[in-house]
Amino acid sequence: MTAKPAFRGAEAIISLSAVDQRDRIASGALRAEEVTEAYIARINATEPDIHAWAWFDPDHARAQARSLDAYRGTGRPIGPLHGVPVGLKDIIDAVKIPTANGTSLDEGRMPEHDSFVAAKLKAAGAVIMGKTAITELAYLHPGPTRNPVNPEHTPGGSSSGSAAAVAAGQVPLSIGTQTGGSLIRPAAFCGTVGFKPTFGAIPRTGILAQSPSLDTVGVFARTVRDVALIADVIFGHDQNDRATSLAPAPRLLETASTSPPLPPVFAFVKPPNWEMATQETQDALAEIAEFLGQQCFEVDLPVAFDGARAAHGRIYLAEMAKCYHTYERRGRDLLSEELRTAIDAGKAIPARDYIAALDWPDVLYAGLSEVFNRCDVILTAAAPGPAPLGIESTGDAVFNSLWTLLGVPAVTLPVLQVDGLPMGVQLVGRRGDDGRLLRAALWLMERVAATEGEAS
Amino acid sequence: MTAKPAFRGAEAIISLSAVDQRDRIASGALRAEEVTEAYIARINATEPDIHAWAWFDPDHARAQARSLDAYRGTGRPIGPLHGVPVGLKDIIDAVKIPTANGTSLDEGRMPEHDSFVAAKLKAAGAVIMGKTAITELAYLHPGPTRNPVNPEHTPGGSSSGSAAAVAAGQVPLSIGTQTGGSLIRPAAFCGTVGFKPTFGAIPRTGILAQSPSLDTVGVFARTVRDVALIADVIFGHDQNDRATSLAPAPRLLETASTSPPLPPVFAFVKPPNWEMATQETQDALAEIAEFLGQQCFEVDLPVAFDGARAAHGRIYLAEMAKCYHTYERRGRDLLSEELRTAIDAGKAIPARDYIAALDWPDVLYAGLSEVFNRCDVILTAAAPGPAPLGIESTGDAVFNSLWTLLGVPAVTLPVLQVDGLPMGVQLVGRRGDDGRLLRAALWLMERVAATEGEAS
Repeated sequence: MTAKPAFRGAEAIISLSAVDQRDRIASGALRAEEVTEAYIARINATEPDIHAWAWFDPDHARAQARSLDAYRGTGRPIGPLHGVPVGLKDIIDAVKIPTANGTSLDEGRMPEHDSFVAAKLKAAGAVIMGKTAITELAYLHPGPTRNPVNPEHTPGGSSSGSAAAVAAGQVPLSIGTQTGGSLIRPAAFCGTVGFKPTFGAIPRTGILAQSPSLDTVGVFARTVRDVALIADVIFGHDQNDRATSLAPAPRLLETASTSPPLPPVFAFVKPPNWEMATQETQDALAEIAEFLGQQCFEVDLPVAFDGARAAHGRIYLAEMAKCYHTYERRGRDLLSEELRTAIDAGKAIPARDYIAALDWPDVLYAGLSEVFNRCDVILTAAAPGPAPLGIESTGDAVFNSLWTLLGVPAVTLPVLQVDGLPMGVQLVGRRGDDGRLLRAALWLMERVAATEGEAS
Repeated sequence: MTAKPAFRGAEAIISLSAVDQRDRIASGALRAEEVTEAYIARINATEPDIHAWAWFDPDHARAQARSLDAYRGTGRPIGPLHGVPVGLKDIIDAVKIPTANGTSLDEGRMPEHDSFVAAKLKAAGAVIMGKTAITELAYLHPGPTRNPVNPEHTPGGSSSGSAAAVAAGQVPLSIGTQTGGSLIRPAAFCGTVGFKPTFGAIPRTGILAQSPSLDTVGVFARTVRDVALIADVIFGHDQNDRATSLAPAPRLLETASTSPPLPPVFAFVKPPNWEMATQETQDALAEIAEFLGQQCFEVDLPVAFDGARAAHGRIYLAEMAKCYHTYERRGRDLLSEELRTAIDAGKAIPARDYIAALDWPDVLYAGLSEVFNRCDVILTAAAPGPAPLGIESTGDAVFNSLWTLLGVPAVTLPVLQVDGLPMGVQLVGRRGDDGRLLRAALWLMERVAATEGEAS
């Protein structure tokens, strides 16, 4: 009846959550190919402005989708992501898909094996849409990606493309990693939900190692339930990653979807360097704390937390200098000035200081446990402010590195806006308590949505 | 009928194995007090020449023994070491027993808590005989202990007193630790059995940390079954020591006591720096290999193993510089020149080199697995030769640090002699295969004993 039924159908598909897409594909109401075509159309329309992809081949995506539809046609059981497209940060290996790690030194690199994450996604029936663009070797030097909300601004980094692609509706789900603030920061800047689970929850086998004591895999989506959906698939144990352990599946989607037995209690934390937050950020966080009323109280972290940033930096740079030694040897000149400087700084760190820094996470976490005895989750800022202007810098991880160092799960929720740019609210949970964190996040999102409904 | 019945009784008691002592105490044929008195008499008679003890109070030992006898008198169940005396290396905390860690900086230090090892020994009914003398902070600078076989020679270190006390019959069992060669070397020099289990098998909670990636707790006794007896008691899991894991009890004594289904196969390995072994050592090992005939074949280690010693040294010194930082700050002048030099060397190690060294154990162990696919245990030298003359040096750990680095279980057996001094043969097993290693060790001891029986 309309001039462009296909395109209007595509818009409707993209507006669905990944959980809904999954359910409709499972029930036969939608085909994987339709879903994939909708996102291909969106990528084709928006990619010239956003540059979210390091590698994208529509025919490769189509072939997977058709194969998945044919498989479902046989009547056999299907996986929990059957037919849902996913973007992979370009440091996450997928067999025979070029994975360049954001450096010309790895241009054309073709992995022979799937990463743990890619293998689990494929087994769950996901369509591997492509590889999302990143900063150089997942460090600070920016890639080509622009913020889809306003292309004059950075999308954040290093998981730039994973965040931008989800925010632009190019893909409903994507995978990123965080060593400093590489997941929560771009999610906050682009206005998506970003979820960095407990350290060790997702195996890193087949992913570029930058700092093995800190590297954490996480996910992007547009809703809390969608991050739970995909995280459920890739949580697990792999004997090649000693940070992981054989633990029961956490059932994040199930836990997040249940009502909390009591309304969650939030501890509002102003972390070290709070003065680096813009006035708008400080005001917005205070407003949310006020909005939560009796469900929220403010907590000061012990003064020892002031040393966390330095400890994080020591571990990060020392391990990166070791992990990137082969890149340096193969072509130091082809590395950015920023990365060379960081590697040199890492090389200058004495082993004794590095080993001493490794003691910090558990010492500080013991202090944080006191806070968690009195609340369900911590409420804090995801970044000092909205995405900075320009794409020369990906912004500051100052409000992320503490939580990465401690290995605690964190999620950023796109509930704030400043001058038309999104800003995230970060919630932080106990180690291993990822389900409760997401449940509190969903509770908060629903409260905010209800208020916005009242206001409109 | 004789002039000194008590002393003759004491000699007879000391000549029993710890397993036999334990069985007789359990059956009521011996009292814990008799056993303890026998060893007190031996200590009183020999200690002036040997200096094996850092702290020894006969009344403290007597009080425990009497209490254990009274407990058994109630008819309640008793532990697997009930009434058997044990010596603890003076870096292993036992509550309210002075533990000076071999440095004047810790003189009079009184632990408030038992180490995991001390707690397990007490729960098993052992008599804590005292603390055995060590080198300074378990590093190289020698303590006062002399070799009981010939006091002009070093007993080895750093577990000097633990080895000497067992060799002198001052105690049937003792605990030591090895970070380089601090357990196997003194056991070999003094002519006892020394057993360094798989890394992480025995929790180190409450023990001075020198190099947490290498520090390994082990045991001394005069027989293979006796090392199995005490190791069974202290193997375990402690959540404060992340190197340990919740694993089923290995039942070492039971496994070691069974006959192997087939005669064990030995791989004779000449490790890197084999030229540092004396000619007598090289000849003796070749002789044993020949003696084993078809049960033994020679294997060359891959050339990569040549780098193991440097990797071990980097990890050791870097971690020691960190662990001993407080000692340096509290009184650098009170540390030996040897230790100060080592700490300075540790401080100079860059983090990147240290982190790279941590990759070595698993890489080399993968190579060693190939060897273990063809044999039950590795046969090699425990030290370059017998105990060197003088007590200024505790000898060289060159043939021990490789196995410590790899975390594999090792046992030294006192089957050789050169010029009246004992020399050890070292057997090495797969990680976690401690029971099979001890079974092969017992098999070898019995073969050697049978041959000596034929010869005599």
